[in-house]
Order: sequence, then structure tokens, then C-alpha cells
Amino acid sequence: MTAPRAPCIILVRPQLGENIGMAARAMANFGLQDLRIVAPRDGWPNAKAVDAAVGASALVERASVFETVAGAVADLNRVAATTARQRGQAKPVLSPVDAMADWAGRAAAGQAVGVLFGPERTGLANEEVALADAIVSFPVDPAHSSLNLAQAVSLMAYEWRKTALGGAAPFAIDHETPPASREALLAFFAYLEDELATAGYFVPSIKRPIMARNLNNILRRADLTEQDVRTLRGMVAALVRGRGRVSAREAEPE
Amino acid sequence: MTAPRAPCIILVRPQLGENIGMAARAMANFGLQDLRIVAPRDGWPNAKAVDAAVGASALVERASVFETVAGAVADLNRVAATTARQRGQAKPVLSPVDAMADWAGRAAAGQAVGVLFGPERTGLANEEVALADAIVSFPVDPAHSSLNLAQAVSLMAYEWRKTALGGAAPFAIDHETPPASREALLAFFAYLEDELATAGYFVPSIKRPIMARNLNNILRRADLTEQDVRTLRGMVAALVRGRGRVSAREAEPE
Repeated sequence: MTAPRAPCIILVRPQLGENIGMAARAMANFGLQDLRIVAPRDGWPNAKAVDAAVGASALVERASVFETVAGAVADLNRVAATTARQRGQAKPVLSPVDAMADWAGRAAAGQAVGVLFGPERTGLANEEVALADAIVSFPVDPAHSSLNLAQAVSLMAYEWRKTALGGAAPFAIDHETPPASREALLAFFAYLEDELATAGYFVPSIKRPIMARNLNNILRRADLTEQDVRTLRGMVAALVRGRGRVSAREAEPE
Repeated sequence: MTAPRAPCIILVRPQLGENIGMAARAMANFGLQDLRIVAPRDGWPNAKAVDAAVGASALVERASVFETVAGAVADLNRVAATTARQRGQAKPVLSPVDAMADWAGRAAAGQAVGVLFGPERTGLANEEVALADAIVSFPVDPAHSSLNLAQAVSLMAYEWRKTALGGAAPFAIDHETPPASREALLAFFAYLEDELATAGYFVPSIKRPIMARNLNNILRRADLTEQDVRTLRGMVAALVRGRGRVSAREAEPE
């Protein structure tokens, strides 16, 4: 059996090259290889990142750099966001151990998993957290909840390796088609939002972002497969195209 | 019951003030308080250590400083040495998880436990390892076995807190309203199915039961709250009532 595909680490708008390098070193310590960086503050390449990586400089040098989080997660089947704070988003909240239990099975089934880490000072923006399927939170003391970025990466990589070495029997997920790629999911959400805007759903318009995010969070929780996304798209298209027919509830204003 | 006494962290001949401070910050993240430092290279106090500790500077300021490892461990009941390399010493070698299983019982019985971490460049000397009762080794990739000092402290502190908390996530999913009653859920499904039938979604009609069941299963997986059901109902109503407006995808047959 080939080794399960390890999660990729996605650093979103990282500020310090040293932290990027130390995160890469931690990844190498625990057998992770795929480093992705979104909009690094100080540009790319970054000599400080290479220096701080010590023996893992090659991992920094072959990191993929993206302009947006959406681009960085496009090919993944499952995305988690790390955050220490409650974000008012209706997503599952997992400990690192819980996350690994889920990911081990997915990885064994050939699915690609990634973890988002936010900038040092602020953490992930709410709209970045919204792109994830689940939140991973470390069991920190609430009075000292600010984790160093590279240490957070280290903890996640360590848990991954423990799981990967533990030989826990990977379980098969009973889905007939694989989880939707994030790209397919985002395209569906964009389509749905367009149609709802056209239909006059977003009232008042200033609430459109939060209303759209609420809908996205509801639908993400369903752990949609490629087929599910096609089904939902067909449902929306049918409702839109049913124009000129009579609504089942025409007489009952909503 | 009082909380079990957390392990103390003993940094032996640390070189960089930044690492001392980042180790202290990691201790505070996971509820450890007792920092001991043996013969710091750059003397004591160390302003860089205080700066790097961020919110945990008080922990640095009240650290105990010793001249020898023997002095630092004098009052402890159990001492472990962290090392990535085989030391040719006939001591038990534990993973961090194994170590916690041992220490949790000792701590609950009032025993004092401490962990030695060696200098950045060389690790602990053999005669320092000899002062420990056990060796703790992290499950690193042998090709990249050099852990950053503060990250090693972070991993150990994290494992301690997981053990102390029993693995609970620090906060739960943010559901503002309770799960939908099954009655509300079934009423919504019936409404959706009516509207889809009106819109001509169920083609061929013989497949209506299986198509409706698929949709219900997708939406059930989202673990809908009362509010979610209202949100989805509003979404469907908007799509139905948007009739006469222009579809965002009017030109693209589905």
C-alpha cells in the first residue's frame, strides 16, 4: 500500500519569513511536503524563509504561491481552518485529533486535504474561514490562546505523523462519488448567489455577504460530493426555470 | 478536585533568548507555569526572551535559574530527557503520549514531574540525559530529526494539556438555534418537493421518489437548525418568486 497523501499546509497572508521557514522545518520534521502560501506580505521568494527552514529549505523553494485562498484550495477535497476563536460560523469544530481521525480515512481513499493558517497578528478573516469545511482548534488555555504560527503548523504536522505511523485502520467512506472539489463547490455557490441576487433574495443588499455565507455554511455541512453538487445545481436551475408555471404556494406570501 | 500539577519545563544551556521566550509562550498556551533554566548562554535576565514571550512575559520573569541540571531537578519526583538520537543509555524510551500516560497518574498523586530540553545546536549531553528516569522522543522523520527548541516544548505542553483536558475541543459548533424539529424538517421537504414538481424538476416522473430522497439525504446531512430551515425555505421561495426577472444563467441551458 502506498502511504496516504499527507495534508497540505496553507499559510494565508503570512507576515514573517522566519515563520514561513520554521513552519516548513516543522513540516519536514513530521513528513509533510506540500506547502502553499497565499499572498505573503513580503513577497516571494523570501530569503529569511529559506534561512529559517534550516534543513528544509528545499521545501520552501518548491512551495506553491497563490493570490487567493480560493485558488490555493481549488484542487482539495476537504479544507480545515485553524482558529482559536469562536467565529460565529456554523461549521464543525474539531480538535487536531478529531481532524486526523477524519483525514486518515480520506487520505487513504486518495482525497486531498489541506489546512489553512492565518496571518500572525490577526488570524484568518471570516470570509477565509468560510471557505473551509471545518474548524480545527487547539486546546489552548483561553487566557493565552495566541499560538505562534510555526508552532501551530508543528502541532498539526505532529498529529498527522502520529496518525500516519499509528497504522489506524483507514475506514472507507460510503460515498458513491468523491467529495466535490473546492472549485466545483465554489462555482456552485457563485451560481446560487447569482440566481438569488437576480431573484431579489438579498434584502437589504448590505446583508448579502452574511446571507450568502450562512447559506454556504449550511450546504458545506452536508459534505457534498460531485454528484450532490450536480443535483443541487439541477434543483436551483429547475426552480429558476419553472417560470411561467404556477408556484405550489403562490397564494401564501413567505 | 484540584488540577493535577503540570510538568515543569527545564531548558538546559539554551542559546537564544528568542527560543526561551517562545517556549514560555507555548507553555502558557497549554497551561504550564513552571519554567526552569539551566546556565543560559547569554546570562539572565534576557530581554529578548521577555519580548519573544509576547503575552507570557510574566512566565519568563518568574523563571527559576540554576547552575546545574542536578540543581534544577532536585525537588522533582520524575524527570524525562528529550532527545531525537539513540543515547546508548538503558532507559525507557517513551513517545510524548506514553509519557503523559505515566505522568498523569503521578501528577494526580501529587508527584512533581519535569522535562529536560537540551541546547539548540547539540541537544543534551550524555551526562545530562543520565540524570533522567526516561527518554522522551518525538516521532520525527529520521531524515529531518532536528526539532526547533520552542516547538519541542510546544508539542510536549500540548500533549500535557490534551491529557489534562481529556481531549475536549475548547468550544463547540456555533449553532444559535436548536436542531430543527423533525416536523419542521419534513414540512420543508414537502414544500421543496411541491415546488420542484411544479417547476418540472422530476423527469421522468417515475424517478420522483428517488430524486426527492436524494435531495432529502443531502440536506439532512447538513444537520439543519430551525433557523437553517427558515433560511432554505426563504431561498427556495425567492427562486420561485423571482419569476419574470432574468435568470443569471438564462443563456446557458442546464
